[in-house]
Amino acid sequence: MNSILAGLPTTVFEVMSRLARETGAVNLGQGFPDDPGPADVRARAAEAVVHGWNQYPPMLGLPELRRAVADHYRAHQGLTLDAEGEVMITSGATEAIAGALFALIEPGDEVVLFEPMYDAYLPLVRRAGGVPRFVTLQPPHWRLSEEALVHAFSPKTKVVLFNNPLNPSAVVYPREDLELLARFCIAHDAIALCDEVWEHVVFDDRAHVPLIGLPGMRERTVKIGSAGKIFSLTGWKVGFVCAAPAILKVLAKAHQFLTFTTPPNLQAAVAYGLGKEEAYFRTMRAGFERSRDRFADGLRRLGFTVLPSEGTYFLNVDIAPLGETDDVAFCRRLVERHGVAAIPVSAFYAEGAVKTVVRFCFAKTDATLDRALERLEAVA
Amino acid sequence: MNSILAGLPTTVFEVMSRLARETGAVNLGQGFPDDPGPADVRARAAEAVVHGWNQYPPMLGLPELRRAVADHYRAHQGLTLDAEGEVMITSGATEAIAGALFALIEPGDEVVLFEPMYDAYLPLVRRAGGVPRFVTLQPPHWRLSEEALVHAFSPKTKVVLFNNPLNPSAVVYPREDLELLARFCIAHDAIALCDEVWEHVVFDDRAHVPLIGLPGMRERTVKIGSAGKIFSLTGWKVGFVCAAPAILKVLAKAHQFLTFTTPPNLQAAVAYGLGKEEAYFRTMRAGFERSRDRFADGLRRLGFTVLPSEGTYFLNVDIAPLGETDDVAFCRRLVERHGVAAIPVSAFYAEGAVKTVVRFCFAKTDATLDRALERLEAVA
Ligand SMILES: CSCCC(=O)C(=O)O
Ligand SMILES: CSCCC(=O)C(=O)O
Repeated sequence: MNSILAGLPTTVFEVMSRLARETGAVNLGQGFPDDPGPADVRARAAEAVVHGWNQYPPMLGLPELRRAVADHYRAHQGLTLDAEGEVMITSGATEAIAGALFALIEPGDEVVLFEPMYDAYLPLVRRAGGVPRFVTLQPPHWRLSEEALVHAFSPKTKVVLFNNPLNPSAVVYPREDLELLARFCIAHDAIALCDEVWEHVVFDDRAHVPLIGLPGMRERTVKIGSAGKIFSLTGWKVGFVCAAPAILKVLAKAHQFLTFTTPPNLQAAVAYGLGKEEAYFRTMRAGFERSRDRFADGLRRLGFTVLPSEGTYFLNVDIAPLGETDDVAFCRRLVERHGVAAIPVSAFYAEGAVKTVVRFCFAKTDATLDRALERLEAVA
Repeated sequence: MNSILAGLPTTVFEVMSRLARETGAVNLGQGFPDDPGPADVRARAAEAVVHGWNQYPPMLGLPELRRAVADHYRAHQGLTLDAEGEVMITSGATEAIAGALFALIEPGDEVVLFEPMYDAYLPLVRRAGGVPRFVTLQPPHWRLSEEALVHAFSPKTKVVLFNNPLNPSAVVYPREDLELLARFCIAHDAIALCDEVWEHVVFDDRAHVPLIGLPGMRERTVKIGSAGKIFSLTGWKVGFVCAAPAILKVLAKAHQFLTFTTPPNLQAAVAYGLGKEEAYFRTMRAGFERSRDRFADGLRRLGFTVLPSEGTYFLNVDIAPLGETDDVAFCRRLVERHGVAAIPVSAFYAEGAVKTVVRFCFAKTDATLDRALERLEAVA
């Protein structure tokens, strides 16, 4: 058995959702919305599965979806992507990240990772033969610094895996930080793997800046997106990868042997959905922002210390002021005694974990959030 | 970039389907049926996407589908599997195979492969760090022999990747061959990864014998199945993995970071479909068998030498009697000049390729098969 994978724990999101189901807790752990997702997009998927093609679509994705992805990013982020040579559809962003790491890493290559990081990153980097080099970000602002990058980059750096907006920290990186990162990627001739699945979930009139749009980054960035996150349909597992043709060609070699393709009815529905007007995305953002504010205000009223949330479905609570020093024990107590599931942020670290921050998913109905707040009253 | 993946060609199935689309050829290359798949199963998927849960299902799969898989194999193959501990759902059999190889192989482990082999196997074995050892099967019967196994197994053998029924050879292995293979797996303490996606597509009253059911194999076999193949819905990408709990636990570690999960509406529909009566599967088999006979008879009438097809969607033609020595050149001529796409069987070999066998997919309507036969008249 493989020594890297065999020893891994089950992903914390699964563990917490399972615990929530078993205990009947309000599940603010794993990031998925209460909202059932847009009815028209789901209706399209239904129509396509009944009347459309259910056999293998082209390996790179349905042409109509690849075009829709390119058009969407032109309209929303000002990017000019060639649907034919620069866009590939994957079975979710997770497959896109896994495939990219297997395709881009040669054993021994160094990969720069930013902690806190999504829990799939490190095992995948290791299984692909990569050597991780960590940049540790600090609460409450989790910003990049030149000093930290100098420390992490080396002549062996081949790939940088960066998540923006950042889960779990809920930071939307400003252009300034991205320019700093771009400078390092260019100087080290490294490829930036940019997990931008939260690109549409940004608040307070912030704009998501895609790393691939920065000068000099077009030919060295892999941009990863997710229909599941864009449309609140996290189970659909339809992801997109955008990269220059020379890179995309290699990513396709991994994709063809990891899943080969993605259900065509869901692809067709996502192609339709990506064409929605700006108003749709604005309304979606406003809805999540309202939920964030409702939950953050409620937590503050109870006496919790709430960290800023600029984007994603998440907000974090600093539990140090409660005298807590162990986020894992705290979350276990929370789900078992108080009936609320959350995620200990230390699960996003390999080393030097921050142990006093807990992540809550607020992409829920008011009733769900209020029920959670009621239960949390006993904790603050 | 990764040196194993970067240099790979695009999978022959994709290349041929693309050529067929571009040239308007009858596509008997990539294995997918003309049949749109069962209407009731598709209707279930439609209903579930409109009225059901579209967020992350449990990482191991919907409980109802895991139970349906266990029940299905009890009813059809006499296996007793624990749905909770021994069944996992994946995004197609390809993901199941990729995940299993990444989970089971430690760099340097030897993996026994049987040629001709599905084209994903070798790159995945290599990318996982495995060292391939080949058993070369010989037409027209492609049977296992003790001599070949003695040659391929060694003290370093950790995994055996076996496809039964065998694509492209269309052999359904008899118990005798499976017992031979089991003996070697047990003696070498190796895990058998058994790709049984064609298990339902067997002809002439043959029965598929699952390797996992043989004495001593239960605790060392990973059985892989595919709803896409069972229901003629190849685009759905819903696969199943069955293995003893100690193995399944490790496979889950790969799955959680390759795709994490599979669309719940398709899972729900497959759960429903797997409960169909034996008559459904008998009728399906009879339909494919009729197509095989129609196409084989037509080819023979034209003067082609047709090899036996005991199962799968495929039959093979020996082109040596036509004076042909290069199946790739032959297939290129076939699609470009004659308007029929087929697959050169040499694409299924890493070494010592048979270069005079061409694979046709007969899972098509009579009209499609007849049109292909008309076009093939000029070739024989
Ligand atoms: C694949 S489950 C994790 C979902 C998610 O993005 C999160 O909760 O962080
Ligand atoms: C993933 S495309 C290949 C489909 C298939 O099983 C075949 O044609 O052999």
